[in-house]
Amino acid sequence: MQQFTRFFTDEQRVRIHEASLEILENVGLLVRNKKAREIFAKHGCEVDNQTTLVKIPRKIVEECRKSFVPTYTFTAQDPQYDVTLPGDRPVVVTGSSAPNIIDPITGEERRATSADIANIAYLINELPGFDVFSISTLAEDAPKGQFSLSRFYPALKNCKKPVRSNTPSIADLEQVLELGYLIAGSKEAYMERPFINHHYCPVVSPLTMDVESTEAVIYLTEMGLPVYGTIVPNAGMTSPMTMMGTLVLGNAEFLALATLIQLIRPGAPMIYAVLSTVADMRTGNYAPGAVETGILQMAHTEMARFYNVPSGGYIGLTNSHVNDAQSGYETGINTTAALCAGADLFNMGGLLGSLMAFDFAKAVIDNEIALMLKRIKRGMEFSEENMALDLIKQVGPGGSYMDLEHTMANMRTTAVLPKVANRDPRGRWEDMGRPDAHARALKEAKKILTKENPARFPAELDEKIRAHFPGIVAGDARWYE
Amino acid sequence: MQQFTRFFTDEQRVRIHEASLEILENVGLLVRNKKAREIFAKHGCEVDNQTTLVKIPRKIVEECRKSFVPTYTFTAQDPQYDVTLPGDRPVVVTGSSAPNIIDPITGEERRATSADIANIAYLINELPGFDVFSISTLAEDAPKGQFSLSRFYPALKNCKKPVRSNTPSIADLEQVLELGYLIAGSKEAYMERPFINHHYCPVVSPLTMDVESTEAVIYLTEMGLPVYGTIVPNAGMTSPMTMMGTLVLGNAEFLALATLIQLIRPGAPMIYAVLSTVADMRTGNYAPGAVETGILQMAHTEMARFYNVPSGGYIGLTNSHVNDAQSGYETGINTTAALCAGADLFNMGGLLGSLMAFDFAKAVIDNEIALMLKRIKRGMEFSEENMALDLIKQVGPGGSYMDLEHTMANMRTTAVLPKVANRDPRGRWEDMGRPDAHARALKEAKKILTKENPARFPAELDEKIRAHFPGIVAGDARWYE
Repeated sequence: MQQFTRFFTDEQRVRIHEASLEILENVGLLVRNKKAREIFAKHGCEVDNQTTLVKIPRKIVEECRKSFVPTYTFTAQDPQYDVTLPGDRPVVVTGSSAPNIIDPITGEERRATSADIANIAYLINELPGFDVFSISTLAEDAPKGQFSLSRFYPALKNCKKPVRSNTPSIADLEQVLELGYLIAGSKEAYMERPFINHHYCPVVSPLTMDVESTEAVIYLTEMGLPVYGTIVPNAGMTSPMTMMGTLVLGNAEFLALATLIQLIRPGAPMIYAVLSTVADMRTGNYAPGAVETGILQMAHTEMARFYNVPSGGYIGLTNSHVNDAQSGYETGINTTAALCAGADLFNMGGLLGSLMAFDFAKAVIDNEIALMLKRIKRGMEFSEENMALDLIKQVGPGGSYMDLEHTMANMRTTAVLPKVANRDPRGRWEDMGRPDAHARALKEAKKILTKENPARFPAELDEKIRAHFPGIVAGDARWYE
Repeated sequence: MQQFTRFFTDEQRVRIHEASLEILENVGLLVRNKKAREIFAKHGCEVDNQTTLVKIPRKIVEECRKSFVPTYTFTAQDPQYDVTLPGDRPVVVTGSSAPNIIDPITGEERRATSADIANIAYLINELPGFDVFSISTLAEDAPKGQFSLSRFYPALKNCKKPVRSNTPSIADLEQVLELGYLIAGSKEAYMERPFINHHYCPVVSPLTMDVESTEAVIYLTEMGLPVYGTIVPNAGMTSPMTMMGTLVLGNAEFLALATLIQLIRPGAPMIYAVLSTVADMRTGNYAPGAVETGILQMAHTEMARFYNVPSGGYIGLTNSHVNDAQSGYETGINTTAALCAGADLFNMGGLLGSLMAFDFAKAVIDNEIALMLKRIKRGMEFSEENMALDLIKQVGPGGSYMDLEHTMANMRTTAVLPKVANRDPRGRWEDMGRPDAHARALKEAKKILTKENPARFPAELDEKIRAHFPGIVAGDARWYE
C-alpha cells in the first residue's frame, strides 16, 4: 500500500498528542505498584505515595519518546516462524485467555482444559493464516501451583509458532520462564531466542496502573525479555462517551506505560496496543464487535504511526455466540478497517461471545479471513508484466482467457483459494446437504486434528520437562470423541 | 476522512491510464450497436462496419475527459431522499435483478414475483441504511408485454427512495418512462425530477459493446435522463488472470463507454462502476464474494478519483446461499475495503448465491452493515469539545463515566445501536432460544412488513395508472403466510 486511510490531519495528531500530555501532567494517574512509583519518582515525576497519584511532566514523556523503536519481534521455537512488526504485517494472532470452549462434539459451552489448549495449539500451528498463538483459553484442570504452566506447556509442546500469553503472578511467570529454559537447553540459549512472548494489561482505565501486571512488565523489561501491554478504555464506563475523549484517554495511558518501560530500559521494543470500545449503554453490555471498535483502532493506529511504534492488537472480536452472519461481519469489517488504516497486529482469531469461549470452527473461519487480509496487503502488484498488454492484444476484443497458459500459470497466486467459503451453484450446495460456513470449518478442524502432529516436543525433551515439573498435565493433542 | 487507502503512486496511475489509451487506440473494441459506431465514426474514430471494430484515438478520449463531471445524483419521488455522489457517500443500494427469492416462510428458493418486489420495495423504504432501491428481482408473473412495468410499478408504488434498474428493450424502457410521466403528472414535470434511475451493462468484456444495452444508454443520454453502466471483467474468463491486467482492461472499457456518453452529451453525469472479479479456476465458478473483488474495487476507485468521477457500484456481494459467517465476512470485508479506498456507491444489499436470490433477512443484515459503513465514514469527529478534557479531569484517575449526564447525552449519537447484532451474555441468549443473526433479521423484516406502508401511491394516482396499463400486476405489499 502506498497510503493508509486517515481521519486526522498532521495538526490534529499533534493536538491529540498535546492533549494526552496535558492529561499526564495535570490529571496524572494512580500507580498502585510501588516499584513503578519509585521508577517514576527517580526520574523526576511528581509522586504522592499516600494517594499513589503520579503526575508525569511532559518533558519526561518527550525524552522517553526519543528511545521508542519502530519494530517488535515475536520469536518462535522454530526460527522460520519469527515475525516482526511492521514488516510482516498483518501479523495475525488468536484471541487469548477465554475461560470456556464450545465443545466440538456437543456444541455446548463448557470450561476449557489443558487438553483443549493442546488441540488448539496444534490447529494454529497448521493454519497458515495465523502467525502467533496467543493461548486461547484457561485450563480448568490445572494442578495447584501450575496455573500458567498448564497453559504454556501444552501450547509450546504443540505449536512451533510464537506463543504468547500472560501470567497472574511473578511466581507463575518464573515457572513459565523455567519451562522456556528447559526447552531452549539453558537460560543462556533461551535469552538469545526468547520464544515466550509476554503480554499484560497493566493499565486499568481510567488512568490507573495495577499491582501485579505492572510488576510483570517491570520484571520482564528489566530482564530484557519481550513484553507489551494492552490498554482497554470502554466509552461510557471507563472513558468519555465520545470517540475523541476515549482516543485521547487511551493515548495518554499508552504514553504512561511507554514512559515507564523506556525509563526502565531505553529502546525496549513496544506495541501501541489499545483496544478502545464503546459500551452499548442500552444494557451496559461490552461491545468489542461494534464498528466503533474498528474506528477507534484506526485512530489509535494513526497515533501509533505518529510515534513510529508498531500498532494493533485486539481487533476483529465478535459479540456473537455462534458462527453466524454477525460473527462474520464483525470480524471482517473491523479487521479490514484497521488494516486499511495501517494496523500491524490482529488478535482476532477463534473467540466467540466477547472473548468468553473458544470455538474450533471460528478459528478456521478466522484463518480464512486472515488470508484475505494478507491478500489485501499484497494488493495489486503493479508491474508492466502484470498489466499483460501483449496478452490483451493477442486475445483481442471478444476473445476468451479461459484456457490460456497465462491463466493456468497465475490462477493460484492471483487469488486466495478458500476452503471454507463455498462458491458452488445452489443445486450442488443442496446436494451436499446445505453445509454452512460453521459446518465446513468444523470439518476442516477435525481433518487437521485427526492427523499426526508434526510440531510436538522430542520425547527426550518431554521426559526432561515432565521430570522437572511433577504432576504436570499431559499436554497432548487428540481429537475429541 | 482526510485520506484514503491507495495502492498506487501518482506515476503508476498515469501509467494505468496510458496503458488503457493504448488498448483503445491499438486493439480497439467491437461495437455491435450501429448507432454507437456512427457516433464514434462521426467524431473521428477508426470504424470498420464489417468487423464492427472501433479504434479510439487517444486525443478523442482526452478531449472527452475534459467534460467528465464529478457528481452524480439519484433522484427520488420524495425529494428528501435525493442522494448525490460523492457528497452523500457511502450511498448504499440493493443488489439488482435476481431471478429468485428465498421464500421467507418455507426458506426455499423459488422464482420471484411482482408481489415480492412490492414487499422488498416497502422494506427498503423503511430501512435507514439503504439510500437507493435497485429492483432486487425479476417478476415471474409479469403479463406479456409488461416485463419491466411489472418490476417498476410495484417498486415505485411502495418506495419513495430513488428506484433504479434496467430494461431489456427500448419498448420496455418507453413503457417505464410513461409510468414515470403518469406519476409525475406530466412528461415535463418528470423531466424536471427524473426519479427513475437507469442502469445497464453495455460493455461485455473483453472489449465488446452490445446492441440493446448500448441502445438504451444512447437513448437516455440523448434525452438527458440519468443513466450509467457497470462493466464486469472476470479474470481468467474475460480478462487476464492478473489483478493489473484486469484493472487495465476494465479501465479501458470504462473509458470507451465514457467517451461514447460524452460524445453524445458533453457533461452527462457518469459513475465509474466496474465490478472486476477473479474467477475460481478450480471450478470456473464466479466469485464476487472473493477478496480480490474488494481489492480490484479499491484499485478502480483510485482510477475513478484520477478521472474525478464518482465511483463504486456492485461491491459486497456474497457467494453464500445462507446468512452464515461467509455471507457476513464477504459483504463486510469488501465493502469496508472499498469504503476506505474512497468508493462512493455500494450495490451490496439483499442478495445471496452470487446475485441469484433475494433474501429478506440478508437485506436487514445488510442494512445494519450499511449503518456501520456510514459510521466509519463519520469517523472520529475531531473537536476540542469531543476530546472532553475537562470531563477527564473531573472524573479523574480511577473514576467512572457510567452515570454521567455527558454519557447519557452522547450514547445514541456516538454509537450505532444495532437491532440484529446480539450483545447479550450467553445465558440470556440461550434463554431467548439461541437466535442467530438470520433469525433475528427475518423477525425484523416481518415486523416492518406487517405494518401499514406509508409510501404507497395515493388512490387516485393508482387508479389512473391501472387504467392506463390494462392487466397490470397488483403491486401491493403484504406479508406472506
